[in-house]
Amino acid sequence: MSDIQERVVVTEVGMRDGLQSIARTMPTEFKRRWIDAAYAAGVRHMEVASFVPAKLLPQMADADEVIAHALTYDDLMVTALVPNLKGAQRALEAGVHRIVAPISVSSAHSLANVRRTPAEMIEAFAAMRESIDGTSKAGGRRVELIAGLSTVFGCTLQGAVPYADIAAIARAAVQAGADVIALGDTTGEATPRQVGEIIELVRDVVGGKLHSLHFHDTRGLGLANTLVALQHGIREFDASLAGLGGCPHAPGATGNVNTEDLVFMLDSMGYETGIDLDRLLASRAVLADALPGEPLYGYLARAGLPKQFSATRQRFESSDSQVLQ
Amino acid sequence: MSDIQERVVVTEVGMRDGLQSIARTMPTEFKRRWIDAAYAAGVRHMEVASFVPAKLLPQMADADEVIAHALTYDDLMVTALVPNLKGAQRALEAGVHRIVAPISVSSAHSLANVRRTPAEMIEAFAAMRESIDGTSKAGGRRVELIAGLSTVFGCTLQGAVPYADIAAIARAAVQAGADVIALGDTTGEATPRQVGEIIELVRDVVGGKLHSLHFHDTRGLGLANTLVALQHGIREFDASLAGLGGCPHAPGATGNVNTEDLVFMLDSMGYETGIDLDRLLASRAVLADALPGEPLYGYLARAGLPKQFSATRQRFESSDSQVLQ
Repeated sequence: MSDIQERVVVTEVGMRDGLQSIARTMPTEFKRRWIDAAYAAGVRHMEVASFVPAKLLPQMADADEVIAHALTYDDLMVTALVPNLKGAQRALEAGVHRIVAPISVSSAHSLANVRRTPAEMIEAFAAMRESIDGTSKAGGRRVELIAGLSTVFGCTLQGAVPYADIAAIARAAVQAGADVIALGDTTGEATPRQVGEIIELVRDVVGGKLHSLHFHDTRGLGLANTLVALQHGIREFDASLAGLGGCPHAPGATGNVNTEDLVFMLDSMGYETGIDLDRLLASRAVLADALPGEPLYGYLARAGLPKQFSATRQRFESSDSQVLQ
Repeated sequence: MSDIQERVVVTEVGMRDGLQSIARTMPTEFKRRWIDAAYAAGVRHMEVASFVPAKLLPQMADADEVIAHALTYDDLMVTALVPNLKGAQRALEAGVHRIVAPISVSSAHSLANVRRTPAEMIEAFAAMRESIDGTSKAGGRRVELIAGLSTVFGCTLQGAVPYADIAAIARAAVQAGADVIALGDTTGEATPRQVGEIIELVRDVVGGKLHSLHFHDTRGLGLANTLVALQHGIREFDASLAGLGGCPHAPGATGNVNTEDLVFMLDSMGYETGIDLDRLLASRAVLADALPGEPLYGYLARAGLPKQFSATRQRFESSDSQVLQ
């Protein structure tokens, strides 16, 4: 472990991915409190809303208000998810820094989720690029456009996804103007060896544009998969506080990787996240207040930090043995 | 993924580590059924009992009967845990193939758990070695003696454990006659980078005698830690069906790594365990019958195998793209 810690970005996506998959709608005031608490814990990247029709996702009807609140923090990177051009325009007007547009690599998932083929989603993506560039030329600030490839590691509808499809969509997304490619394990089917293979596959196609990974913890491999992604050079991950989340079109899918458990693992390995674990754990209280009865997950929240955790982050080779003198 | 799969041994320790940490005693008949079901699923290594005074652990009072049943399977490797010489002698009489003797690298844990210092445990270990050799010379079969180093990755009582202590105990255990060194994360504090460091540290001291790792999943890192151990050449792991287990002297500790989830990860990575996942999942019914109301854990049991899981184990580079024709 070197003295200079390597930085890993953890993006809190619970306000979007988490909240859109539970039945209840979190009142705006609690969303503000959640953003405040996450910010206080050191989280500087948040995906706070999606711009989808309110009749489809009433949970996200207050996207403008939530984004406005997030933007009161000068150094907070604010992201919104958008499914189409109209959503992108609304996100631009709201003033987000990053727009994530999902593109499923599984035709079955794409049709079920947005009633469009992957090819149609690529076309829509190109139109978003144009719209963003128009805004930028008109004096707006430069907004990053992320192609969020979904069902990359498998699909509950289609089953296995051919590697050739993943490569084809990644290439097309870059050609359509993606600044960044993110890979999503939408239905929680990723496994460690596959994660390494697919990262290398996509990197061969898009190079340095492959930025972040988005894992769900459906089969308990979320952190093992994250570990492999770290070993393959990925330094940006999505996660949800208390593991809130899922995918309404992915039966059996459970929440995103738990933010607290992820930060604990990164911390233990000497990565710098800027996030304070005690404050992060304390921020779960906002969810407990806002969503009474909703299950909150997390190993660390139950077990607590190990005794002398900060000390265990240091090496002990030089210490004298305390036994067998 | 090569055509020849690399073998990984998964030792089911739920009959010992799992059962000794729950309040109820599983009737012998159910233990027999569990062994039968695990064997039918392909499990060929089981730690089925411990030889401790029945007044301390009534759950293990039927150790002789359980071992006798396990020994009816010709190709089943049968292990018992013993805390002292008397236990080792009982295990030898019962006819086990392997004896695991725990030696804590934390003085605080050792005193709390067995009221002896690590140095005293090493002395006791040497006496076990002598006893086993005596039996062997008298015509008994060769029994493997494993030093199960515990609290290697941290201790709830002592906190961090100096690397020098781990190295000193590993060296002393080999000098005292250990055939094999196993490393235990008794209190569920292991973290991925540390796992790699400690494996290399211990291997430097004991070489090829470092065999297996024993993780608890207290902070959700059980499988990530296993992954690191695999990368460092470890090919033998303990696990408990349904994550049953814990440590009575490790407050807050949860069960061992879940056998089903571990086998799923290994399977997905192309390792050969010889274990059939569907049958393994079905074997949870024995626990549900035997221990009604006892929480049974496991991601795979809840989410099920991914669609076309066997297919996802193959590579897809050569497949034609199904999208963007």
